[in-house]
Amino acid sequence: MPAKGVLVAVTADVVIAGGGVIGTAIAWRAAAAGLDVVLADPAEGDAASLVAAGMLAPVSEALFGEGALLRVNLLALARFPSFAAELEQVTGHRVGLRREGTLAVAYDAGDYAALMRLTAFRRSAGLEAEELDSRACRKLESFLTPDVHGGVLFPGDWSVDNRRYAAALREAAAAAGVRVVRDRVTAVLTADGADGAASADGADGQAHGRARGVALADGGEIGAGQVVVAAGSWSGAVHGLPAALQAAVRPVKGQLLRLRHPDGMPPVLTHTIRATVRGADVYLVPRADGEVIVGATQEERGPDLTVTAGAVHDLLHDAMSVLPVTSELVLAETCAGLRPGTPDNGPIVGGAGSAIPGGVLLATGHYRNGILMSAATADAIVACLTGQPPATEWEPFGPGRFLAGEEER
Amino acid sequence: MPAKGVLVAVTADVVIAGGGVIGTAIAWRAAAAGLDVVLADPAEGDAASLVAAGMLAPVSEALFGEGALLRVNLLALARFPSFAAELEQVTGHRVGLRREGTLAVAYDAGDYAALMRLTAFRRSAGLEAEELDSRACRKLESFLTPDVHGGVLFPGDWSVDNRRYAAALREAAAAAGVRVVRDRVTAVLTADGADGAASADGADGQAHGRARGVALADGGEIGAGQVVVAAGSWSGAVHGLPAALQAAVRPVKGQLLRLRHPDGMPPVLTHTIRATVRGADVYLVPRADGEVIVGATQEERGPDLTVTAGAVHDLLHDAMSVLPVTSELVLAETCAGLRPGTPDNGPIVGGAGSAIPGGVLLATGHYRNGILMSAATADAIVACLTGQPPATEWEPFGPGRFLAGEEER
Repeated sequence: MPAKGVLVAVTADVVIAGGGVIGTAIAWRAAAAGLDVVLADPAEGDAASLVAAGMLAPVSEALFGEGALLRVNLLALARFPSFAAELEQVTGHRVGLRREGTLAVAYDAGDYAALMRLTAFRRSAGLEAEELDSRACRKLESFLTPDVHGGVLFPGDWSVDNRRYAAALREAAAAAGVRVVRDRVTAVLTADGADGAASADGADGQAHGRARGVALADGGEIGAGQVVVAAGSWSGAVHGLPAALQAAVRPVKGQLLRLRHPDGMPPVLTHTIRATVRGADVYLVPRADGEVIVGATQEERGPDLTVTAGAVHDLLHDAMSVLPVTSELVLAETCAGLRPGTPDNGPIVGGAGSAIPGGVLLATGHYRNGILMSAATADAIVACLTGQPPATEWEPFGPGRFLAGEEER
Repeated sequence: MPAKGVLVAVTADVVIAGGGVIGTAIAWRAAAAGLDVVLADPAEGDAASLVAAGMLAPVSEALFGEGALLRVNLLALARFPSFAAELEQVTGHRVGLRREGTLAVAYDAGDYAALMRLTAFRRSAGLEAEELDSRACRKLESFLTPDVHGGVLFPGDWSVDNRRYAAALREAAAAAGVRVVRDRVTAVLTADGADGAASADGADGQAHGRARGVALADGGEIGAGQVVVAAGSWSGAVHGLPAALQAAVRPVKGQLLRLRHPDGMPPVLTHTIRATVRGADVYLVPRADGEVIVGATQEERGPDLTVTAGAVHDLLHDAMSVLPVTSELVLAETCAGLRPGTPDNGPIVGGAGSAIPGGVLLATGHYRNGILMSAATADAIVACLTGQPPATEWEPFGPGRFLAGEEER
């Protein structure tokens, strides 16, 4: 690694800040589209992508008032299988896509009433949902507690093995010629000579010029006419973006558990289970290799990655409440990750008007849906990079929505 | 490492099979007594010694009908402080001996009644115990739940940091000249030329001759006129001992948790807490460095070292029931160890008559009290090795008690 202050003589068409599934998916597709791509990330395996459960769940995640988000999630789900198939073909590795569907179960009558209200809303949006009584739930998943009040099967909500998926993306990107720089991007640099931070935070509140690359933590630079900020919950720490945009992304801590079947135990689960246990949400996601993911907390604690006794207890308690056999599984791993949250729970994908430097694109703020949205986000960003319009579903999710005040000035 | 079948040219006065706290304490003291000692163990850190909580608790562990065990535990506790002080002096490292005492608390009225019966028994044996109501318990430990029914303070039950203690023992042994062979002892060898297994399992059921050393898993041997089997729950796998003695030691699985205070949180605990929560026992042992050990399960599952979801849940649940603030601690580690259990819960320390080869001593079967008994066990075994009588408290705990039938023949 070069000493501080020494510029790295790396240039490319596009530099991508962030090597999670979003950044890596973009890198792969951009390189496949003929662009010369460099991806910068300080670590492999430090990302929220690796802590995720890998649910592809636009339907069971859809909430009241989030219609635009539902539409972009459905676009993302529709794109996922062909994207994953190409990835498997290119790399020769399976990514563990499971299409058995998601079974939402309610533990008590109150949980069931809440699930029915959500289900009515989801149906009104045209989503497929099949109501099941307790017995029908247990017919699908025989280890469910008989105490389950009832449930709803969402056949369109799938899952993928996020770690296999992330590893395959890295391999595909490398095979497509993407170069990786193991360092953290600290700022977007603009062509007027000053780094973007100075422009964006300057007296007139305006950012001007065009991107000319990025600055790295070790003092080096990467030169590129187009910059994609895909740094997840750390995106707000990249200088050269307007302060309002930096502030729009915050880390939302999630703790989850990786359980494993002991040797010789047959699988305890086929569908993803999303359970509400006396108002608390827990999910269990089975993997083909015998893993069961249990998640997840949602905590506003800043960039804290500690695993706490209380969270592990609560996750195990809720999981065992709906699937008592969970107690016999091996606790293989406890982990915490930081989702990139935004004020409206929507992602930030695309460029903006005059308030951010030309040539700068954002692909962050994917919150709980980064794995799901990765393929469609790659499509949208590669469209921007190659001068095409992204799908119209992305229109509500540009960075401009957080910059209205600055653009009016 | 030499190839299989090649003899290692190692000889010593004494060879010790097993490098947990028992074997290492013996090795240190035997070397300090002027003996040439080799210790054989396949791993450093694979032992029950490292999973333990380090409670030095003869009083709060004493059960009805175990008077002889209580006496040897009290001998062990009386010996521990001077032993630990010498260890600290020799190595320059603190071993984390804490003398604040143990607070036994009962969660509900049934738990309290059981605690009172035990306390009456312990007092009848002359042990110090101070009954406390709920308020007095919370005066000693302010984070206890107000739901605690009451408790008893056992000022004579202490704790030690088992990992620091084990590390200091290894350092002291090395400084005293003990040589370590990183291999597993498979058999005691006897002077008649056959390995002891053949003698002990032979047609006449008699073991004869004298120890001449041990065989190792890689095919080598260590020559020594005295052999100490201190292999914990694996002692039964050492050939050359009578089958009845091999069968007397079994692994009793224990799972425990290591919690840690987050940065900046003041200590939540001063005393060791032993709680009974609706019939289930849990303990919390604070360390000077901010760790809190929560344990432990007792499971008859053979040599299984998996950490299970159910055990972690139950330990956290019971700990949080008595000390709710536990939920805010970091779950730093989950682990499982194998205690060497025996049919009468007592250790096996010393030699025997004609049924086992001369020069062979056992120091195993310490079950839940290996750390506590390590110093006194070292004294007893070094006495045997140097032709002195061990303390009379050890008389009920010789290997002969499991060999009555074989000795009569």
